[in-house]
Amino acid sequence: MSLDSATHEQLRQGLEGPSEELRQVLQRSRPADLADWLQGLEDGAMWRVFDCLDTEAQSALLEYASEELRARIVPRLGAPQLVELVDELPTDEVVDILAFAPAPLAQDVLRQVDTEVAADVRELSSYPDDSAGGIMTTDVDVFPPDARVGDVLKALRKDEDASQNEGAGVYVVDARRRPVGFVSDRELLTTPIHSLLSEVMDPNPVTVAAWADQEDVAQLIARYGVSAVAVLGSRGELVGVVTADDALEVIEEEAEEDFGRLVGVSDRQPTRMPVWRRVAQRLPLMGLTVLGGMTTAHILDWALGSVDEAHDTLRYVPTVLGLAGNVGLQSSTILVRGLATGEIEPERRSAVFGQEVLTGTLIGCLCGLATLLIAALTEGSPGAPAWAFGNAMGVAIAIAVAWSAFLGCLVPTTCDRLGLDPAIVSGPFLTALSDVSGTGFFMLVAHTMLGAGFGAGG
Amino acid sequence: MSLDSATHEQLRQGLEGPSEELRQVLQRSRPADLADWLQGLEDGAMWRVFDCLDTEAQSALLEYASEELRARIVPRLGAPQLVELVDELPTDEVVDILAFAPAPLAQDVLRQVDTEVAADVRELSSYPDDSAGGIMTTDVDVFPPDARVGDVLKALRKDEDASQNEGAGVYVVDARRRPVGFVSDRELLTTPIHSLLSEVMDPNPVTVAAWADQEDVAQLIARYGVSAVAVLGSRGELVGVVTADDALEVIEEEAEEDFGRLVGVSDRQPTRMPVWRRVAQRLPLMGLTVLGGMTTAHILDWALGSVDEAHDTLRYVPTVLGLAGNVGLQSSTILVRGLATGEIEPERRSAVFGQEVLTGTLIGCLCGLATLLIAALTEGSPGAPAWAFGNAMGVAIAIAVAWSAFLGCLVPTTCDRLGLDPAIVSGPFLTALSDVSGTGFFMLVAHTMLGAGFGAGG
Repeated sequence: MSLDSATHEQLRQGLEGPSEELRQVLQRSRPADLADWLQGLEDGAMWRVFDCLDTEAQSALLEYASEELRARIVPRLGAPQLVELVDELPTDEVVDILAFAPAPLAQDVLRQVDTEVAADVRELSSYPDDSAGGIMTTDVDVFPPDARVGDVLKALRKDEDASQNEGAGVYVVDARRRPVGFVSDRELLTTPIHSLLSEVMDPNPVTVAAWADQEDVAQLIARYGVSAVAVLGSRGELVGVVTADDALEVIEEEAEEDFGRLVGVSDRQPTRMPVWRRVAQRLPLMGLTVLGGMTTAHILDWALGSVDEAHDTLRYVPTVLGLAGNVGLQSSTILVRGLATGEIEPERRSAVFGQEVLTGTLIGCLCGLATLLIAALTEGSPGAPAWAFGNAMGVAIAIAVAWSAFLGCLVPTTCDRLGLDPAIVSGPFLTALSDVSGTGFFMLVAHTMLGAGFGAGG
Repeated sequence: MSLDSATHEQLRQGLEGPSEELRQVLQRSRPADLADWLQGLEDGAMWRVFDCLDTEAQSALLEYASEELRARIVPRLGAPQLVELVDELPTDEVVDILAFAPAPLAQDVLRQVDTEVAADVRELSSYPDDSAGGIMTTDVDVFPPDARVGDVLKALRKDEDASQNEGAGVYVVDARRRPVGFVSDRELLTTPIHSLLSEVMDPNPVTVAAWADQEDVAQLIARYGVSAVAVLGSRGELVGVVTADDALEVIEEEAEEDFGRLVGVSDRQPTRMPVWRRVAQRLPLMGLTVLGGMTTAHILDWALGSVDEAHDTLRYVPTVLGLAGNVGLQSSTILVRGLATGEIEPERRSAVFGQEVLTGTLIGCLCGLATLLIAALTEGSPGAPAWAFGNAMGVAIAIAVAWSAFLGCLVPTTCDRLGLDPAIVSGPFLTALSDVSGTGFFMLVAHTMLGAGFGAGG
């Protein structure tokens, strides 16, 4: 899901007009859309837009900004401006955003903000990023069991920060701040104001330890269908709360991470990375695939020995299949998930297609080069490397892998155009297609480059 | 995430005591836990527990029950009891639950419930299951822009159904019921009661068409970090609302679906299926892999011809790699995701391990048998099938595939025991390991069974 083209056009026109017009367009835009748009702007235009926003809109923008955009904005803000922004943000976001400021600046900001906020921020920083403590917010409203609904309503109307706790409800705690109940916002709205909290509360609130894995927290929220989970410190006391929208982010993040790992691509938003970084990131595991393929070649050599050069090429087929299979699966997974999560907008489709094929081709060339060297040095007699043979193997592998990357992009894109779910055909179907055609290409190239011995006896 | 063992023990003991004790234990349990526990009980015990619950608890239980459990309960309830349950449930759940009742019973129930509820249920049933309309609830509170916060509070306190709209907020609509603003529950709690809704509302509510894909709706909620999305009918009028917890379910569901498709396993909760169904489900795509492998074998034959029986075995290596790779990836993906989503509880680990290895072994045997037949019929001279050769290929493939399934289970389980994230090593690393060792096993078996010609010239 991304910026729709109408909003994009409005924003672009706003940028070309006077500041007053720009302000009006900005006011109608959602922070998530603004963050997306700003990320694509040059520094000059980006700062013009940022300065047109009031503090509240700036803090909302930072909340939705990618790490990349935060890294462009935060280090260049002054301490007074950061202090104002920090006041508007929930504490969990403050931690993430101050991480982009140089250490002296961050310290300076924490000295100037409210001491309570500073203490909360320091506490949150002490938990690992991917723990319940790392994703919780400390802004949570607590009341004793004998408070009445009317008292809670009055207290919430007075508390300025309470309006930030979207969906968090209020917790009922005992004298040692251990949660004994939960009352949702909706419950507060619909029960008579003279009721005691102990009468209307859910006496069995869902809780989790602060050091629990963020994935476990998200699972709890999904399992029990609750809007919030209470996070407990080491003595069972309430230290914060994780809400359903945090859980949504975690589940998306962890699923994308697992998809990436399954095929050996280790980044979120892989379609937004420069091609050289994609190659660099995937190359180590592809190196492992080359090594595996070469080990297999030696097992086959040990089992069967060498008859002629043509049959020697057969031992390289596992390397071709391994590399082509992996590269094809990477391209197709990136396209399938990118189309499913909306990371790939309609207008970026052909660009992503081209970049992925280029990435696969480069990986194919590098792995082909590695195969060339290994084959030339191990297949020849000692002191006389078999360059012609190695050369043929290298070129054949490069071509088969590039072809597989192309297939890995073509199949999901075509499915999507035809209105089919690309996920259906991107697994074993694609692998079978890529195995057959990859082997065909490989043998064709080997045949053309080596000539002799092919077709004998058939 | 599943039923913890302490809760499980309490429930088990409650079931062995008198009804009064059972009732007390049940009151302390969460509906999601109860649903999990009931699923594992015999019919007699299950009905005893169900009858101990009051109508509210029964409806909550049905809300969290799996399709399997719903199918056991719903058809055996009488119309009067179903009418009571339907009154307690949000309309989107009513549709899903009545789907398990025989058509005459469902019609009977709809005739007896409130006409408005019945109309809503009929409307919801008209949208596809996986569309915004299919997952929305029609229970939504709407007010005109000139209503005051105090009026809203009064109206919500009077409306019995309002307490069910957890996290949905209220929508501000114009005379034609088109949404012009959104006010969250928290906003209602924290703004002065004399404010006009038009002053406090978010004038830019996130909306989606009723026929939009459920995945798009979930993406909108995740992107804009909102607690609810308004669903619009064909004339732009508000027909319902999808909340963050619905989105959480959709995102989990769609990610699992894509994972399954990526490796050719097409069911949610694959570790809870009987082994024969897993085999039946995965076999068609594995048949495709065998066909792909055999086509590759023919390409190699065309390119190189036959030298001796030992070298003929080489042409079957792509089939081994394809099958072993797919089966290993299926087992490892099922274990990795099962461990990540909590579908595999600690006490079920060894059972799931054994079942997956058995599934892989059975698939290996069936695909080995197919290879045996194809190899025997195509490799021999016309009229004299090469049974000994086909036999060797079949057995070798069955063993290599079973070994790969074992590796696919062993690697993630070991990682998990060692405290490492199983996802890291289950992709290309596992494929390389399975390729090398699978080829080794294949050649060893072929060597043992065929004997002659191996090791020549090496």
